[in-house]
Amino acid sequence: MNMITNLEKPKIIVGVMGPGESASNEEIHMAYQLGKHIAREGWITLSGGRNVGVMDAVSRGAKENGGFTIGILPHENLVGASHALDIPIVTGMGSARNTINVLTSHVIVVCGMGPGTASEVALAIKAGKEVILLGVSEAAEAFFNEITKNDDILTAQYPEEAIRLVKRVLALNYV
Amino acid sequence: MNMITNLEKPKIIVGVMGPGESASNEEIHMAYQLGKHIAREGWITLSGGRNVGVMDAVSRGAKENGGFTIGILPHENLVGASHALDIPIVTGMGSARNTINVLTSHVIVVCGMGPGTASEVALAIKAGKEVILLGVSEAAEAFFNEITKNDDILTAQYPEEAIRLVKRVLALNYV
Amino acid sequence: MNMITNLEKPKIIVGVMGPGESASNEEIHMAYQLGKHIAREGWITLSGGRNVGVMDAVSRGAKENGGFTIGILPHENLVGASHALDIPIVTGMGSARNTINVLTSHVIVVCGMGPGTASEVALAIKAGKEVILLGVSEAAEAFFNEITKNDDILTAQYPEEAIRLVKRVLALNYV
Amino acid sequence: MNMITNLEKPKIIVGVMGPGESASNEEIHMAYQLGKHIAREGWITLSGGRNVGVMDAVSRGAKENGGFTIGILPHENLVGASHALDIPIVTGMGSARNTINVLTSHVIVVCGMGPGTASEVALAIKAGKEVILLGVSEAAEAFFNEITKNDDILTAQYPEEAIRLVKRVLALNYV
Repeated sequence: MNMITNLEKPKIIVGVMGPGESASNEEIHMAYQLGKHIAREGWITLSGGRNVGVMDAVSRGAKENGGFTIGILPHENLVGASHALDIPIVTGMGSARNTINVLTSHVIVVCGMGPGTASEVALAIKAGKEVILLGVSEAAEAFFNEITKNDDILTAQYPEEAIRLVKRVLALNYV
Repeated sequence: MNMITNLEKPKIIVGVMGPGESASNEEIHMAYQLGKHIAREGWITLSGGRNVGVMDAVSRGAKENGGFTIGILPHENLVGASHALDIPIVTGMGSARNTINVLTSHVIVVCGMGPGTASEVALAIKAGKEVILLGVSEAAEAFFNEITKNDDILTAQYPEEAIRLVKRVLALNYV
Repeated sequence: MNMITNLEKPKIIVGVMGPGESASNEEIHMAYQLGKHIAREGWITLSGGRNVGVMDAVSRGAKENGGFTIGILPHENLVGASHALDIPIVTGMGSARNTINVLTSHVIVVCGMGPGTASEVALAIKAGKEVILLGVSEAAEAFFNEITKNDDILTAQYPEEAIRLVKRVLALNYV
Repeated sequence: MNMITNLEKPKIIVGVMGPGESASNEEIHMAYQLGKHIAREGWITLSGGRNVGVMDAVSRGAKENGGFTIGILPHENLVGASHALDIPIVTGMGSARNTINVLTSHVIVVCGMGPGTASEVALAIKAGKEVILLGVSEAAEAFFNEITKNDDILTAQYPEEAIRLVKRVLALNYV
């Protein structure tokens, strides 16, 4: 069995969003675990692609466990890209690339919070994509629940729980 | 005195962000008042440019009171644009144009909340732009205060109060 | 008569595209003349907004002759912007902003040629915008005529001739 | 050997650009052949991703011969996407996505010509990417040679010749 037979129909793409330079050790650890589990499910991992924080950790977690990784890079070349990407998409569009992260993913898992990540959650809600918030504050949870009308915000405490929610979302939306 | 002498140096651009189709009557009223006051201060009004909600109301408030209005449109032509725009900027980029709204404005006033608006507040914080939240919920205020480290979130209850805060921000940053 | 009465309906926006750092003295001179004439016609000048080459010259020509200028900047702040802009639109999107230049302009005048300018001519043809090529090579003229089916490529040898063609295009399309 | 070991370092991405609805039968045939050869070399095929013309044909040629395909889609969802994509990147940015096509590819092969394709060749030259023109007119060849200073335009008459040139470019730039 090779790459091609694996990909006879478009694979599920799980977007994982979270802080870059400001990510905590716990967030980096959870992101790595997310990447590992996404890989083991046979899904593709998508992130913002830079070589820091949640983006780098989820990509490493996926790659080191047999997964496939896409990074949507803000810069106009590969400087600062994670080394754990199979497909680096080079946009040169700065934060405008956040919309691509969201539109390309079947479902989004958020691991930690910051301004860039918050913009992605908001854009995901606007685009009607389901979002799973992993280990975020009560204030974040309350706010995002307030601005959605479609029950498309789910919350999890552990990576494994987030993965179970991804499965549930996929079963409801993509089978 | 004409347009040219008014504009010998780049004018202040105040971005006003808020819901489109889902804006409440109160938000539309406040947006109109914001536009009126921005015009009277001699500042330029920038919005998302569509012919609905806060975008349309702030542009009308500005235009009907001698102001100048820019709209950063998501579509690839003028369909759905507010009739109260002096300069419609046509992007064809959907929500990716939200970054342009934020980067082009000297300061941002938010009037009402929704997913698109939330993405703009988050992008503004990321870009280091000051944001004035007008009449938003406690949950929104709590969340955005949590994700900023630079005291760049201010809150107001009335349009006049928001305008006073814009003046304070401009005095601190652009004189 | 003031800015507002001038702008009761959206003004005509003439986009002027051409080389930046590599512009020749003649191209810079022609761009300045274009800006002057556009201003005298009461139209708005739009350019790529940087402080070099055709972008800067057309903006100076317009501003120094009573005109109004918009620049669609590629960078994420005002570093490198022309000082002759009334409205600097800050995109942070690099060359992806070329589509905005084209979509926002009623008609495009090209003054000199280079890779960035060529991309704008091509995008203008794709968007169905009329393009006036001023002082370009025979190879450029031949190529762009080959890829358009709608007679939307016009050529001029002097700025005054380009302005006459702009008037003709506007009369046919926007009255 | 599985997908992962194949992809221990980022694979070569070959962008293939050409007309959509207006592609000729010959261009579609050549695009299919290009996709087949790119797949057999173990490279990844990147295109504009739509279900028409050169984009669709190169993706089918790659997929039906064991290749891996990425499509950078202009729309905000999968409507109109080629069925032969492994990774559909959803941008919602219209023609602004052309910059992503170019920046993400290691080398670009052009198969047929039109306004959108011309914008991509121009953006590629601007970004310093090498371009191989397959079966284009003399006017196109003359023009693009005129606007490049770096000998980064190569021409081919047959898909096999284009592939040989891709190999030469890669050997010079990426080993």
